[in-house]
Amino acid sequence: MLLEKLREEVLEANLELLRHGLVLYTFGNASGIDREQGLVVIKPSGVAYDEMKLEHMVVTDLEGKIVEGTLRPSSDLDTHTLLYREFSEIGGVVHTHSEFATSFAQAGLPVPALGTTHADYFYGPVPVTLPLSDEAIGGRYVHETGLAIVARFKGESGSEAIDPRAVPACLVAGHAPFVWGKTPHDAAHNAVVLEAVARMAYRTISLEANSAEVSQALLDRHYFRKHGKDATYGQG
Amino acid sequence: MLLEKLREEVLEANLELLRHGLVLYTFGNASGIDREQGLVVIKPSGVAYDEMKLEHMVVTDLEGKIVEGTLRPSSDLDTHTLLYREFSEIGGVVHTHSEFATSFAQAGLPVPALGTTHADYFYGPVPVTLPLSDEAIGGRYVHETGLAIVARFKGESGSEAIDPRAVPACLVAGHAPFVWGKTPHDAAHNAVVLEAVARMAYRTISLEANSAEVSQALLDRHYFRKHGKDATYGQG
Amino acid sequence: MLLEKLREEVLEANLELLRHGLVLYTFGNASGIDREQGLVVIKPSGVAYDEMKLEHMVVTDLEGKIVEGTLRPSSDLDTHTLLYREFSEIGGVVHTHSEFATSFAQAGLPVPALGTTHADYFYGPVPVTLPLSDEAIGGRYVHETGLAIVARFKGESGSEAIDPRAVPACLVAGHAPFVWGKTPHDAAHNAVVLEAVARMAYRTISLEANSAEVSQALLDRHYFRKHGKDATYGQG
Amino acid sequence: MLLEKLREEVLEANLELLRHGLVLYTFGNASGIDREQGLVVIKPSGVAYDEMKLEHMVVTDLEGKIVEGTLRPSSDLDTHTLLYREFSEIGGVVHTHSEFATSFAQAGLPVPALGTTHADYFYGPVPVTLPLSDEAIGGRYVHETGLAIVARFKGESGSEAIDPRAVPACLVAGHAPFVWGKTPHDAAHNAVVLEAVARMAYRTISLEANSAEVSQALLDRHYFRKHGKDATYGQG
Repeated sequence: MLLEKLREEVLEANLELLRHGLVLYTFGNASGIDREQGLVVIKPSGVAYDEMKLEHMVVTDLEGKIVEGTLRPSSDLDTHTLLYREFSEIGGVVHTHSEFATSFAQAGLPVPALGTTHADYFYGPVPVTLPLSDEAIGGRYVHETGLAIVARFKGESGSEAIDPRAVPACLVAGHAPFVWGKTPHDAAHNAVVLEAVARMAYRTISLEANSAEVSQALLDRHYFRKHGKDATYGQG
Repeated sequence: MLLEKLREEVLEANLELLRHGLVLYTFGNASGIDREQGLVVIKPSGVAYDEMKLEHMVVTDLEGKIVEGTLRPSSDLDTHTLLYREFSEIGGVVHTHSEFATSFAQAGLPVPALGTTHADYFYGPVPVTLPLSDEAIGGRYVHETGLAIVARFKGESGSEAIDPRAVPACLVAGHAPFVWGKTPHDAAHNAVVLEAVARMAYRTISLEANSAEVSQALLDRHYFRKHGKDATYGQG
Repeated sequence: MLLEKLREEVLEANLELLRHGLVLYTFGNASGIDREQGLVVIKPSGVAYDEMKLEHMVVTDLEGKIVEGTLRPSSDLDTHTLLYREFSEIGGVVHTHSEFATSFAQAGLPVPALGTTHADYFYGPVPVTLPLSDEAIGGRYVHETGLAIVARFKGESGSEAIDPRAVPACLVAGHAPFVWGKTPHDAAHNAVVLEAVARMAYRTISLEANSAEVSQALLDRHYFRKHGKDATYGQG
Repeated sequence: MLLEKLREEVLEANLELLRHGLVLYTFGNASGIDREQGLVVIKPSGVAYDEMKLEHMVVTDLEGKIVEGTLRPSSDLDTHTLLYREFSEIGGVVHTHSEFATSFAQAGLPVPALGTTHADYFYGPVPVTLPLSDEAIGGRYVHETGLAIVARFKGESGSEAIDPRAVPACLVAGHAPFVWGKTPHDAAHNAVVLEAVARMAYRTISLEANSAEVSQALLDRHYFRKHGKDATYGQG
C-alpha cells in the first residue's frame, strides 16, 4: 500500500474534524500531499467517519487521477488538487461546513481579526471569495471553487493579495471554509481554531457591531509568537 | 409480528433523532410505511426513547386504524397518515420540536436556502404553513395540521406549488417541522440536516439580515449532485 | 429515617437538573413535600451533585424548622416553604439558574407563549415578578422572594391573576426561575422544559422581534391534550 | 520535588478548565503561589491537557526565574507573576480564551452585573482594561498585560478603583479574561462562573439592550451571602 504514513495522517485529520464537532454525517474532508512523489491522499466520498479505515483513503496524482484505491474520492477533490498546485508550501487541506465559519461564508463576510486568539493563527481577516458566476457553477464547478480561492489570495478583482502561509483559510461565498496547513494535522487544527474564532467573532459583533479589529502591533506580536523563526510558544 | 423489518427501521429512525439531540423526553416521532400492504408503523405516544422496544411500535392502516400493538400511537398519527396518502412517493415521516427549525416555525418564517449545505438536501426554501384557523384547531386538529402542509405544497392560498420530493420538509406555523423521505432512515437524516441548516441560517441572518439566497445555478449544481439519475456523490 | 420515598424522589429530581445541564457546581435545588405530615425534604446547601446522597437531604416542617438532617438546608428554603404554604396543590419545587430562563429573568421579561411546545406545558406566558424593593432585599430576602412570586400569581400590582397549576413556573426579576409541579419529578421535568421553551423563544424573538403568541385556540388545544380530565397524550 | 501539594492543585485547576470546556487544545493556563517560599507553580507552554503530569509543572520565583522544571513555563507567566506581586491576597491565577468572556473582551465591554448569579461571585461588573499601546505591545508585552490589569483595579486613567478580592477577574481588551482567587481551585472555579455569567449577560443584552444592572441592595445581599465573615451559604 502506497504512502502508509500519509494515509494515517489523513485519516487522523479527518477524525479530528469529527472529534471537534465540525462535521455531520459524511460532510467534510481532509487530504494530504507527498510533494516528492506528487501524490495526494484524500477521504473517500460519502463514507461515515466512524467506519473509515486506512484502506478507504484514495490516492491520486496532482491532476486528480486515481493511482490507488477502490472507492470514489471526495467530491471536492478538484479543489484540493488545485490548492496543492497553486500553494506550493502547503501539505494538507481540509474542507468542512462547520457552523459559524459557514455562517460567515453564507453571509458573504470575512471573519475579522477581532482578538488575539485569531491573531495567534491567522495574520489578518479570513477572506471570502467572490460569488462564483453561473458559468463557473455550470462548468468545472469544483475546480472553479479552487480558482475563486486562489484568485482571492492573488489579489485579483481589486482585493489585496494575501500570503496563504500567513492566512491558511478561505471562506467560499455561499458555501463554506477551506483550510490548509503544513501537514494534514496542521490543516485540521487550523479548521478547529477557525471555527472557534468565527464563533467568538459572531458573539463580539452581536455585542458591538463596530468592534475594532486588533491593531497591527497586536497582530504582529501574537502571530510571530507562534510562527516564524522567532516563535517562543510551546516547547519548540 | 407484522412488518418486522419496517419496525426496526422505524425504531432506528426514532433513535437517530435522540442521538442528534433533536428530541427531549418523549417529544417527537418517526414512522414508516409499507406501501404494498398499506400499513404504517409509528412510535407509541409518550414512551421514553431509551426504553423504546420493537414491540412498542404501533401498526395502523392508512386511515389510522390500529392493526397491531397494545400501546396508543403517537398523538400526531393523523398528520403522518395524511402525508402518506397525499405524498405517494414518501416512505417515512418524522416530527420533532428541534430548536432552530422550531424557532423559524414559531417566527412564521421559512428556512431560506442560504448556502450549499441547504442546497444539498432541499431544492429551495423549507416553507412554512399558514396559521391554522380556530375552526381547524378546534376540529380534527392533527388531521388539519396535515392539510395545512399539503395545501402549502399544492400551492393553495396564492403560494407557489412545491414538489414534496424536492423539498422534503415543512414548518407548521407556531408549531414545529414535519420532515419526510424515501424511508424512515432518510426522513430522520433529513430532519437532522434541516436542524443544521436552520441553525446556520439563523447565524447567517444575525450576521447580515439581507443575506442573499443561493443562485438557481448553485441550487441546481448541489441538489443534483446528490439527487436524481446524474448524482455523483457517495459510493452509489 | 423519615420519608424514605420522598427523599429518593427529591434526590432524583436534583439529579435530573444535573443530567439536563440546568445546574453548575452547587447551583440550584429541588424539594418535595409530604402534605399529610406537613414535612418538606430539600437539597442541602452547597453540596456537589455528584456526591449527594439520600442521607444528605434535609427534612423541615412547613415553617422551615429542621426536623431531621445534619446539614444546612438549601439557602432558598424559605422560598420553597412559602410556595408550599400558598400553592396548596403543588408537591415539588425546583430552583435553577438555567441559562435562557435566567436571561429572560435578568431582562425582566416573561417567556412568551410562542409555540405549541410552550402550550403543552404552560397555559400562557411564564410571568416575571416585580423587582424586589431594597427593604425586601435587606429584610427576610428569601421569604420576600416567595412573596413576590405569590403576589404575581394572585394578580397584585395590577397584573392579571394566574392559576399556579396552569402555569407552574415564575421568573424572579434579576434572579432566575422557580418551577413547581405535582411531584418533585414533575417540577424538575417542568424546569427542563421551561429552559427548552425559553431557548426557543429567544431564537424566535431574534428572528422576528414581533412574533405573535399562539392563539387562544392553539393554547387550549395543546394544553388540554396533556392536562386535565380529557387529556389524550401518553399511555395514561 | 518542590511544592508537591501546590503542583497537584495547579494541575487540578488546569484540568478543571478542560472539564468545563473553557480551553481548546493547549490554550489557557492556571498557576498557584506558595507565599511563604515566594514560589509560583505554573502550567508548561503548549502541552496538551490530557497528557499533562505533575512533573510538567514549572516552578519559578516571583520574578519568573525558573527554579525547577525542564519545560518552558506558560508564555503568559509574566502576567501571572505581576498579579501575584501586586495583588497580595491572591493564591491562584487562571487565564482562558473562554468563548463568551473573550467576546466581551474583544468588544471592549465589561461583563455587567445583570443578576444574582453574577452577584454571588463578582461584587460589581467585571471590568475591561484599556487597549495596550503599540509601545507596550512591542515591549515587554506579557508584563504590560499585567500592568494594564493592575492599572484598571487601581483606578488609573480616570476609572474607579476596584478591590481585586471583591471582583476576582478582569478582561484584557482585544484579548481574553484573567481570573484569580484565594487558591488555584478558587481561581478556576471563578473562571468557570465568569464564563457562565458572561453567557447569560450576552443573552440578556440580546433580549433587552438596556437591561438594568442589579441594585446595590441585591449585589450586597448575594455577594455577602457567599463571602466575608457573615456568609451563610454552604456547610462552612
